[in-house]
Amino acid sequence: MLHLLYKSSYVFMLFYYAIIPLGYLTKWWVTIEKMKGNSTILVTGGAGYVGSHTVVELLNNNYTVIAVDNLVNCYSSGNEKPEALKRVEKITGETVTFYDIDIRDKEALDKVFKTHKIDAVIHFAALKSVGESVQIPLTYYQNNIGGSSTLFEVMANNGVKKLVFSSSATVYGDPQFLPITELHPTGQGCTNPYGKTKYFVEEILKDLCTSDQEWKVVLLRYFNPVGAHESGLIGEDPSGIPNNLMPYIAQVAVGRREKLQVFGADYPTVDGTGVRDYIHITDLAIGHLKALERMFSPCFKSWKAYNLGTGRGYSVLEMVKAFAKASGKPINHEIVGRRGGDIAECYADATLAKIDLDWVATRDIGAMCRDTWNWQKKNPKGFHSS
Amino acid sequence: MLHLLYKSSYVFMLFYYAIIPLGYLTKWWVTIEKMKGNSTILVTGGAGYVGSHTVVELLNNNYTVIAVDNLVNCYSSGNEKPEALKRVEKITGETVTFYDIDIRDKEALDKVFKTHKIDAVIHFAALKSVGESVQIPLTYYQNNIGGSSTLFEVMANNGVKKLVFSSSATVYGDPQFLPITELHPTGQGCTNPYGKTKYFVEEILKDLCTSDQEWKVVLLRYFNPVGAHESGLIGEDPSGIPNNLMPYIAQVAVGRREKLQVFGADYPTVDGTGVRDYIHITDLAIGHLKALERMFSPCFKSWKAYNLGTGRGYSVLEMVKAFAKASGKPINHEIVGRRGGDIAECYADATLAKIDLDWVATRDIGAMCRDTWNWQKKNPKGFHSS
Repeated sequence: MLHLLYKSSYVFMLFYYAIIPLGYLTKWWVTIEKMKGNSTILVTGGAGYVGSHTVVELLNNNYTVIAVDNLVNCYSSGNEKPEALKRVEKITGETVTFYDIDIRDKEALDKVFKTHKIDAVIHFAALKSVGESVQIPLTYYQNNIGGSSTLFEVMANNGVKKLVFSSSATVYGDPQFLPITELHPTGQGCTNPYGKTKYFVEEILKDLCTSDQEWKVVLLRYFNPVGAHESGLIGEDPSGIPNNLMPYIAQVAVGRREKLQVFGADYPTVDGTGVRDYIHITDLAIGHLKALERMFSPCFKSWKAYNLGTGRGYSVLEMVKAFAKASGKPINHEIVGRRGGDIAECYADATLAKIDLDWVATRDIGAMCRDTWNWQKKNPKGFHSS
Repeated sequence: MLHLLYKSSYVFMLFYYAIIPLGYLTKWWVTIEKMKGNSTILVTGGAGYVGSHTVVELLNNNYTVIAVDNLVNCYSSGNEKPEALKRVEKITGETVTFYDIDIRDKEALDKVFKTHKIDAVIHFAALKSVGESVQIPLTYYQNNIGGSSTLFEVMANNGVKKLVFSSSATVYGDPQFLPITELHPTGQGCTNPYGKTKYFVEEILKDLCTSDQEWKVVLLRYFNPVGAHESGLIGEDPSGIPNNLMPYIAQVAVGRREKLQVFGADYPTVDGTGVRDYIHITDLAIGHLKALERMFSPCFKSWKAYNLGTGRGYSVLEMVKAFAKASGKPINHEIVGRRGGDIAECYADATLAKIDLDWVATRDIGAMCRDTWNWQKKNPKGFHSS
């Protein structure tokens, strides 16, 4: 009798430690695979820089994509699909359903949710120029916060409570320590309205998760996205004078701008110029897929924030040198005084994304420059070239 | 010749040190007096607790008042003017123009600005329950931030760029030092969505002032408003169970509630119960007039924040005792455990308001309790009693 009990305890242990967990794992795996195969993702700001590259990766991984965009920051000839999304379809051979909608238009947005069975949302739609946000803050608050809160309301009304939010390392303000982990304080020292809108939306989402346990939210804090899709068909297409280093360098290389101004060469860095954590746009896009998968897993609860960066910084002069090498063009540049609000160094600790999301940035500075140059060369005037 | 030069330098000095400043002073004084006499002030949330008391003081000081309110938190029988504003008219013998408008309704709000020549806005309209804000955060963000930013947009479109904003000491979060001055950090440790909406709106206003020098903004950070107008005609009329101590005590005294629960008697305070800086609603209302006058003076630029408090704290048990004395009723109460999120002590340093606004709170705890009791006794069911 005792012997039997002894034996049955083994069976129990086997069941407890092996079969039950295996069952769970299988269930999760099936869930994730099912979501991957059949999920429909609404992408707001889907025609933008990060949006369009993410749509490519979604389509390549069998997701169905509904893109909405108000086209305020992207090129579209007439009433058709924006050029960026036409090119996405060319790259992937898949179709993107597109709606020319401002996400502040509640009725129009609601109609999209009623028309399609949406499983999750990736939310990129926002104004994104730091300098402009200082000039017209109210426009930024209305677009970025008003738009987001309308989106969240429509999502909740339609029972869609899974969201990946396009946030930014600007929520950390001036770094208190380096590399920046996700535990770094946020909101303190956000000096411009753009950064504040990202921080405020993060806070709204955290409060939403506290109030309703059905919400699942991933906040992705980007460092400095650069590069382009390796096909050279899509890339960053800033309107007017580029705010960021890489597109500026690219426009100098292609002859659209005379020379690059380097703001400050007296920072306490490797060569005195500012150091940033640049990340290839394709790595960044893949990060969104990993975030979706994580969010779809049954063990994911409430909200979580992840840094998306390479974890190492490059100086302005290192970027100039790398781009000159990749493009074979000299990058005309001059050192000028520091620019107000700039910091010396900023780079990510991306360990958490590696552990939780099984994600690492794999494309190096050479690939970033090569792909930017490939895009710039083929499209000297961005999407207007077509 | 030298003698003449010497003499004329005296004339110059007299002119420079006496006549020019005197001229300026006269000009300012005339401007302020003119504004006081002829100004039209739009009051959002004008039918609410702080709103209605401020309208009384405005009318008593010859301002013309346009009140807008969506009546979500106040009693109105049918389509007429809300009861609180009828009583305000009774107190003052003056008329209030009233619009039943939600400030998120841009067109309706714009019509008000087109109909009246508005000189400045005092902005109270907001949802205000801390507990409710945790339950339905999105509603709070949409009302308080969405409403405010629509108001600011309509103001700017109509060239009205003077605003007094009803903020709160909650923007300071857990006090890092006491008494709290206006230099205390804000936004850190705001633990509930209500407090965050106040903080976010403050930040939006600061950014607005940075972007456009025509904006003039006073942020008034209230400590704990209590009491009622001495006439007993208007007062705090919470819907449902009161969130705040004073109306709860009053409802116990009048027999609407059985007993008061005191959350925690083991705080490091005078008697173990929480200490807050209570301020009489009439003092608070007068603070808004002082803020308006300050804002109308030509030397006022950009934005400034002021604490409105008495500068001294009272414990829960001290308030209970004072109310029992004022009302002649015993206040049935029991000590229970601490409530999450509560802090031991919080009180203001109100020196800046004294220096800049020439404002001090003059009504003591006795007056606060007496006026609350007078209001409660005459209106046991608030405005519904009428």
